[in-house]
Parts: sequence; C-alpha cells; structure tokens
Amino acid sequence: MQVHEREALNALLDESRVGHVGITTDDHPVVIPTAIARDGDSVLVHGSTGSGWMRLACRGVPVCLAVTTLDGIVVARSTFESTFHYRSAVIFGCFERLEGERKERALDVVVEKLVPGRLTEVRPPSPSELSKTMVLSLPIEQWSLKVSDGWPDDDVEDVAGPAWAGVIPLAQRAFAPQPAPDLRTGIPIPPSVAALSVT
Amino acid sequence: MQVHEREALNALLDESRVGHVGITTDDHPVVIPTAIARDGDSVLVHGSTGSGWMRLACRGVPVCLAVTTLDGIVVARSTFESTFHYRSAVIFGCFERLEGERKERALDVVVEKLVPGRLTEVRPPSPSELSKTMVLSLPIEQWSLKVSDGWPDDDVEDVAGPAWAGVIPLAQRAFAPQPAPDLRTGIPIPPSVAALSVT
Repeated sequence: MQVHEREALNALLDESRVGHVGITTDDHPVVIPTAIARDGDSVLVHGSTGSGWMRLACRGVPVCLAVTTLDGIVVARSTFESTFHYRSAVIFGCFERLEGERKERALDVVVEKLVPGRLTEVRPPSPSELSKTMVLSLPIEQWSLKVSDGWPDDDVEDVAGPAWAGVIPLAQRAFAPQPAPDLRTGIPIPPSVAALSVT
Repeated sequence: MQVHEREALNALLDESRVGHVGITTDDHPVVIPTAIARDGDSVLVHGSTGSGWMRLACRGVPVCLAVTTLDGIVVARSTFESTFHYRSAVIFGCFERLEGERKERALDVVVEKLVPGRLTEVRPPSPSELSKTMVLSLPIEQWSLKVSDGWPDDDVEDVAGPAWAGVIPLAQRAFAPQPAPDLRTGIPIPPSVAALSVT
C-alpha cells in the first residue's frame, strides 16, 4: 500500500546503503546501483569523475532513484496470494552536481552514513582525491513509497484447507570484520567497525 | 572488475530474489523492483495483468534489468579507498510475454525459485488466478557483470599509518517463520518453509 509519511521514506533511505538509479541514454534505459546517503531533503550519490552515467546525470537529465528493502517472504496457502514483505521508494527528479565546500561537506555526510564514526579515525581526503570524486544531489520532492507488511490474504476455502501460511522474515546482517592481509600488527578494530559488525 | 563467466551471472541471478527493471515512459526513466527467477537462458518476472510497467514492457520496448548484491563494506585506511564488496549484473533487451502452457510452466519455475518445494504443498493456480497474472521473459543475451571482492587498496603511506583496514561482510539472512494469525491449529511448518528459514 502507498505510504505518504515522509518519516517512513526517511527511515527507508537512512537504513539503505544502496539505491538503483535509472537514466535514459541513447533512447534506452540503464539502471545503476550506487551508494546513497540522505542529507536532509536530498539524497547524495558519489563516484569517479570519469563515471559515464554520473557525467550524463549531472547535465540535468531526468532520473529515477529506486530504494528497496526485501523484508520477508509471505508464504500464503496458494502461490497466487504469496508475495514479499518489502518497502519500495522511488524518487524522480534531476541531480545537481556539488562543488567546493558543498562537495566536501556532502562527502562527510556520505562517510558518516556508510561507516558512522569513521571520519574521526582516518585522515581527511587529499586535494587529489577530492578532484577525482563527483558528488550529486537529488532533491526529495517527487517521490512515492509502497510498503507491504501484511499477513497472507487467503480465500476462505484455502484458510479451511491443509496448507500452512505465514511469513519468513528477511534482513541484511553484518558479520565479524575481517582484517586486511597487510594490516600491521597491534592495530585494534576501531569503534566504527565494531559498531557496524554487531548489527 | 568485469566478469565474463556466464556461470557467475547464473549464480548471482539464482541467489537473488529481486531485480530492478528500468524502462523509459513518457521520456523519463522509471525503475521498478520485481521478483526474478532465471529459467535457463532467460529471466522471468511476473505480476498483475493490470501492472502499468508490465503492460508497457510487453510491447517490446527496451529495458534494463539490474541485479545487485551487497556483500560487504570495504573499510580502507582512507575514505577515498573505502568501497563495497558487491556483485552487479545488468541485462539489456526486450521482454516477451508468455501465454498458455509456457506461462503456467514459467509460474512453476518462479515458485520453485522463490520457495523451493512449495509447489507440492499447495493447490495449483485456478484459471481465474492464471488469467490475472502476467509473465514476462527477458533473454540473457546482452549482459554485463561486475564483481568487487578485493581487500582495501591503500597507498603505502596509509598502510604505514595508524588506521585499521578490512572488510565487514554483509549478507541477507532469513529468520524463524511467523505463522499467520488465522492459521488453523495443528498445521506444522512445511518442509519448504523450514528449509528457507535456516539460511
């Protein structure tokens, strides 16, 4: 069902690490998965300045950003009524390219979203690294959110029958961090990584 | 990096329950999440005969199907080198609408993919249910697969520094099945659901 509360959209965007951007190029659609981070009333994406789709997107062409979670498998008493629990948002609009201080600040927002606390554990990006990075911002203005979270909706005859019905919950989980092979001895797992790994 | 082995594409499609279809409508792109099931050399999607995007897609317009897994967070010693472990496939082409026996067989493939073994536990779809269901098939011909599964690629100076580096693995997990509130007493969890819930 459609959900109109902006808070529900924010929650979905804030817990999702990846979205899918649709863009039309040479008269055919392309879909690109990309890291996302909400910054107030916009969604930030970033990538290499050499990225083809980002170079196209920053020219003001219309895009569609889809953000989806798969929250469960609804096992009904018939295959017809079986479905998923999901949350699915789409945002339509045009990206704006951020530069200068706005870009630097946006990259901090991206890092804080993806690995909260990491900013204080590593050096800041160098001028060369900043120059190789493009940041785009999509305003959250034209959007739609659908949520499926109900129980199986079987016919009366099927409910009276022998088949089981219910929901298998699904969720993304993090596992124990794996240190890099070239990690020097004596460097402990930092707070940012420890916090993410217990989810 | 690009991966050209078809077996790697098959593995990604077979373990993924949802893909994102990009389609251009009225000169702007739309991205729709949808359940997917590989059937040999094609990918099946299904939905209501009233679905707007499917009615457009079965008219032979070009589409892009993206299938993505997020397999980990690569925490490098700099934010610039930090990235994700992922597998990302795109398939370009046009959907074909399946009818009659091909449609019925395809729906069996979809069910067997999403809840293996469920077909033998429930009644077959009724003629009315079949008539309300549309099944589309996308040939796996023009495709691309990118896989990121490496360790952080930090500069020598950063490796010599104080920051930790490694990977936080991520995966989708299933949890204990929740019976429907209207489930009649004495109906045990079926083998199909039990098998999915231990993943």
